[in-house]
Amino acid sequence: MKTYLDCIPCFFRQALEGARIVRASPKQQKQIIDGFARKIPKISLQSSPPEIARLGYALLKKISPNGDPYKDIRQKSNRIALRLLGRLKNKVNHSKDRILTALELAIAGNIIDFGVKNNLNVKAELKKILAKESKVIHKKSIFHYLEFKRALKKARKILYLADNAGEVVFDRVLVEEIKRAYPEKDIYYSVKSKPIINDALLEDARECGIHAVTQVISNGTDAPGTLLDLCSKEFRKIYKSADMIISKGQGNFESLSQEARPIFFLFMVKCPVVARETGCKMGDTVLFYNLKKNGSIQN
Amino acid sequence: MKTYLDCIPCFFRQALEGARIVRASPKQQKQIIDGFARKIPKISLQSSPPEIARLGYALLKKISPNGDPYKDIRQKSNRIALRLLGRLKNKVNHSKDRILTALELAIAGNIIDFGVKNNLNVKAELKKILAKESKVIHKKSIFHYLEFKRALKKARKILYLADNAGEVVFDRVLVEEIKRAYPEKDIYYSVKSKPIINDALLEDARECGIHAVTQVISNGTDAPGTLLDLCSKEFRKIYKSADMIISKGQGNFESLSQEARPIFFLFMVKCPVVARETGCKMGDTVLFYNLKKNGSIQN
Repeated sequence: MKTYLDCIPCFFRQALEGARIVRASPKQQKQIIDGFARKIPKISLQSSPPEIARLGYALLKKISPNGDPYKDIRQKSNRIALRLLGRLKNKVNHSKDRILTALELAIAGNIIDFGVKNNLNVKAELKKILAKESKVIHKKSIFHYLEFKRALKKARKILYLADNAGEVVFDRVLVEEIKRAYPEKDIYYSVKSKPIINDALLEDARECGIHAVTQVISNGTDAPGTLLDLCSKEFRKIYKSADMIISKGQGNFESLSQEARPIFFLFMVKCPVVARETGCKMGDTVLFYNLKKNGSIQN
Repeated sequence: MKTYLDCIPCFFRQALEGARIVRASPKQQKQIIDGFARKIPKISLQSSPPEIARLGYALLKKISPNGDPYKDIRQKSNRIALRLLGRLKNKVNHSKDRILTALELAIAGNIIDFGVKNNLNVKAELKKILAKESKVIHKKSIFHYLEFKRALKKARKILYLADNAGEVVFDRVLVEEIKRAYPEKDIYYSVKSKPIINDALLEDARECGIHAVTQVISNGTDAPGTLLDLCSKEFRKIYKSADMIISKGQGNFESLSQEARPIFFLFMVKCPVVARETGCKMGDTVLFYNLKKNGSIQN
């Protein structure tokens, strides 16, 4: 997905919020805003939003070079989500279509996102998710579940792109269900290599216990999405050879939506630009398979 | 009021919305954003928000040099508000405290603001104002009415700073009530000299009929607030000699809040920064007299 001019005010807002999270002084906050403003005339709107957002986050790293300012937030998300694991599994156990329920929960877990709204009360939001599952279902505007089931059945190698810490617990439930239905599938769960906002890292994958369920890899970058050019060779090899990709979150959608690969994008619509791009509404739950780029998947 | 870093994303949003209103091409929109971004490192946060916003609007003027892109919007606001005049006067006629009711309506009329939210459905909003007058009253968090009444009684020369077109009709009702109670007061109703967003101009004052009620002057600028340094000598003379100033809207508050002058700021709180600055909530109705700068007004 290309960047829209409407993304630019939002980049500034994110840079400022990030600056405050890394405890930049007011002077440093101004320096970050100024530094980012200087980059604006040089950027191409053909870049994806995560590519541009990354430039802002790079400025934050200068203030806090070895820092991992969202570490507490990541750990807190992991703990809160882990406490919900029993209830998540219970929901799946009592459902008619286990994969569908796990899939819906995995998308609902995408609400854990500090890039979009950093004052999110994760605990309250997650409780709401569990309470209002039926509502979530009603807000599906794009939901290519038939294609998803077909692809899942046929796939041998699946690459699952993580988004946020905490959310990993929700992903774990889906991966466990896929493994239960198809024990023979190779599933790679991919996280970021270095801290970026509250995106899941290897340590989060471990804390959320998904490493015990499937293979966990890191993608070689600290971009808030999947910028293939910056990813490690190892990651790209798996990306290219996977015959199904499950992609979580807006950042991954924004960076991979133009790819002609069998990618299923699972996310909640969190900004008006993505809402317009997808024809959805804010807060919608999306399971999107790019039929135009990939064609239909036959049984 | 100084500018906060939180204002910067909002300036970009306003510049972009303005660019679309002047029908700038996507390329021109990008040029405006880039041009504004280049100015950011040079600005001082000690400037008031309208001073900085004006830099963005100056870029729009380059695209549409003789343009008055909000003309239609201004005229529409005037027409819609004029149709409400009878109902506004009726409200005043049936109230116990005529000045108080007219004052509340004048503040409520400040909802007509395209700088903050350009897709505002003025007609619907104004109907709501008339319907929910009692609610508006409940949302008063700062309301220095006692000081206002005292100042009004004592003042000989009153300067009334207009904000938006359409809103002028609401101001007219207040000015008429002041004239009714104190026919001897000199009241100057001041508008902008050149188009800036939907701010009231001389032609709007005429269209709304306030010129028949009191003297209308223009302030010599096209700033979205009152930037005294840029105002005409004539305006500044009246500003300095007035013993009561009634200031409408956030833009005037942002540019004059530090002045040690007997200014009564009437506005609706439309952004989180002003909410924080005033200790109010978004949507609050404010009648603010800066006691710290001016001291109390005695009977």
